[in-house]
Amino acid sequence: MKNYNIVVVGGGPAGVVTAVTARKIYSDKKIVLIRNVEKPLIPCGIPYIYGTLGDIKKNIMADTPLNNSNVDIILGEVKEIDRANKTVLLDNNEVIKYEKLVLATGSIPFQLNIKGENLKGVYYIKKSFNHLANLKDEIEKAKNIVIIGGGFIGVEFADEIAKLENKNVTLIEMMDKILLAAFDKEFCEIGEEKLKSSGVKILTKNKVVEILGDSKVKKIKLASGEEIDADVVIIAIGGKANSKLAKDADLLIGKFGAIWTDEYMRTTDENIFAVGDCAEKKDFFTRKPSNAMLASIATAEARIAGMNLYKLKVLRLNYGTISIFSTAINDYAFGAAGMTESNALKEGFEIVTGNFETVDKHPGSMPESRKLKVKLIFSKDSGILLGGQVSGGITVGEMINLIGLAIQSKMSATEIITFQIGTHPRLTSAPTVYPIIKAAENALMLL
Amino acid sequence: MKNYNIVVVGGGPAGVVTAVTARKIYSDKKIVLIRNVEKPLIPCGIPYIYGTLGDIKKNIMADTPLNNSNVDIILGEVKEIDRANKTVLLDNNEVIKYEKLVLATGSIPFQLNIKGENLKGVYYIKKSFNHLANLKDEIEKAKNIVIIGGGFIGVEFADEIAKLENKNVTLIEMMDKILLAAFDKEFCEIGEEKLKSSGVKILTKNKVVEILGDSKVKKIKLASGEEIDADVVIIAIGGKANSKLAKDADLLIGKFGAIWTDEYMRTTDENIFAVGDCAEKKDFFTRKPSNAMLASIATAEARIAGMNLYKLKVLRLNYGTISIFSTAINDYAFGAAGMTESNALKEGFEIVTGNFETVDKHPGSMPESRKLKVKLIFSKDSGILLGGQVSGGITVGEMINLIGLAIQSKMSATEIITFQIGTHPRLTSAPTVYPIIKAAENALMLL
Repeated sequence: MKNYNIVVVGGGPAGVVTAVTARKIYSDKKIVLIRNVEKPLIPCGIPYIYGTLGDIKKNIMADTPLNNSNVDIILGEVKEIDRANKTVLLDNNEVIKYEKLVLATGSIPFQLNIKGENLKGVYYIKKSFNHLANLKDEIEKAKNIVIIGGGFIGVEFADEIAKLENKNVTLIEMMDKILLAAFDKEFCEIGEEKLKSSGVKILTKNKVVEILGDSKVKKIKLASGEEIDADVVIIAIGGKANSKLAKDADLLIGKFGAIWTDEYMRTTDENIFAVGDCAEKKDFFTRKPSNAMLASIATAEARIAGMNLYKLKVLRLNYGTISIFSTAINDYAFGAAGMTESNALKEGFEIVTGNFETVDKHPGSMPESRKLKVKLIFSKDSGILLGGQVSGGITVGEMINLIGLAIQSKMSATEIITFQIGTHPRLTSAPTVYPIIKAAENALMLL
Repeated sequence: MKNYNIVVVGGGPAGVVTAVTARKIYSDKKIVLIRNVEKPLIPCGIPYIYGTLGDIKKNIMADTPLNNSNVDIILGEVKEIDRANKTVLLDNNEVIKYEKLVLATGSIPFQLNIKGENLKGVYYIKKSFNHLANLKDEIEKAKNIVIIGGGFIGVEFADEIAKLENKNVTLIEMMDKILLAAFDKEFCEIGEEKLKSSGVKILTKNKVVEILGDSKVKKIKLASGEEIDADVVIIAIGGKANSKLAKDADLLIGKFGAIWTDEYMRTTDENIFAVGDCAEKKDFFTRKPSNAMLASIATAEARIAGMNLYKLKVLRLNYGTISIFSTAINDYAFGAAGMTESNALKEGFEIVTGNFETVDKHPGSMPESRKLKVKLIFSKDSGILLGGQVSGGITVGEMINLIGLAIQSKMSATEIITFQIGTHPRLTSAPTVYPIIKAAENALMLL
């Protein structure tokens, strides 16, 4: 039996960041990370294997941070947690003792549960090197590619594959628009327009009812009866928490099947922590459980868990999940943080929105200027910022982080309009029309 | 005699934003903006006229916002303020009555006061269309161009002119490094390296003592005795507040010759406001007067003044100037906000710094990845963020705004490390190594 102080189960970003953070705070502890894959992939990079990167090897998460932090790595699958003896059992029957156990077991894809989903050429997005390498080979040979699911992953796959030569890419989404879980309609529409100009055919308000073929996929069949040729089908309809280990160990499991934790990321057993996709989130504003799954959320939770394993660090806790998303379609970027207008209304918030459009450089005649669109959602009574959405050029990724920080700081529209910013012709909008300030001004006129 | 409720003197960003903001709040007031130039220029765009834009007309500030806000424009020079009668006198002897007067008279270049500075071919950076158009003609004909002053403007001019064919560009700076007023040395050094690779010759710790020539400049002479050929000399050594009108009207003038104001941007006469380069700043942390002059600061002040002209708006006041700078050299971007390490030490703050380097996309194998370097400066006792510096790709402009917001929100290192962010392969660093969080972590290990 091996003895460790800290045992982390899972080799994704949540596991790695927990281990590396724990090492910084607890320099004398023996730490091990157990994972079931030899070459872990960078999750957000997966769609880019198929176009921009062109090589799956470019998307492997290096072990350097773990090695530099003196964290042991064990390849294996944890089959069972023995809470009474504080051990875990591996698939090779090895037993490992822990003082503190961290579950970072990630998520598994939702199943469509339709006929034909096991045909050759039909792929769920599993974070496995060989699985995704096979998908790459099949895409290269394929002409007709159908992607089921218009969330981030589906959209990014579609945009990347459309860059390859001689591919017909069709994206199928059940809801009215793509990306509707994260954005209000007007942003989704810009996204659809950009994705169409990448050459992707989009079918919204449509549902795949069957996948047709003999041993290999040939077509998909829509609820409408329409059939579409398909050499490869990629199913990207989201995932659910991989919480089986925790459930078997009688830890509390929440509404979406994820592991409940407190604000320090402790499960109902205070020596067992859970972080990342397998852990339940609580929405920052509604205080309801949420099923947001993003590597950036996972790493924020991992930092909190890593610090609090042995001693509680005041203020280093999880105040609730904002869900900050960003993506790029046809080199046009989109970001969302906090609540959308439609979600805020659905949840019963009384809100006012502010909108502004400008360009992302100044003067607008600067080369490579992009149209920049900002929407902010405020609580009507307090003026507190509830959410924001941005579309534009590459700087959108950091603009949405700025909006995310303003949300987490509970800033009001009044504070945002007197916010000091820096501007530069090559880097930002003009100071006279800095769009986050102008959108807040726009909202204030209505408050 | 014309009668207005609100009279704004000055047509730069500060004047325009004051007028436009005032219109939103005070819909029934008659507003006029008086300016002494027909075609006002976008100040931060001026260096880009000479390379990237290639045409001064592309850098004119449009009158659309003023026209849309129903603000009258008068071309003329204000010669005098009569505070007793609440009027201003124009150079054509017209008298204009005000209830509220806003001075947005900007700055005028510092003079070198050396022999030869009046020779043809020697240019200060005045915000005048014809002056800058003449400079463009002369640069086009010139072979040898000498720029005096290694601050933002000098560096941006050097970088832009070096893009033209067949130009020898020499930049001369008195201090040890270029950009030393805004950045710590290690960032200045990266800036020098990038500027050199643009083809600019940099002479630091050097001073021009004389400009040589008959009617037209031929050479400059350094303190060392060395002489350098020059067809054009550009002097960019900063500016001082244009506060003559205010001084003549017996308004209080501060240490750097700028107009004193309170937190609502009111001068010692509560019906007269001052905003932008002509108004004195107060440093956010040291609470000392500062001479920062940036369009972004000017517009923040203008918004506050515009809102508070008739009624004081609680919380919409100026808590002190952070000075958020950003620039680009050879397509590599630099940003600074708040205090540098060297300034903080000079001012007697007890500090701890945190540093981190990564790339600005993920995985690092993504095309166009840039090295990204972040430095954060914290107060040692409270852990409060005092300043930050970033260098990297185009996203630096918004990253430094994010750091600026964290400074203004008085965030501590502890809060920053649990800050939730969004990340994306094309748009940001990886979630595991988001550099603002990692730099705060680095600082905390020392706190």
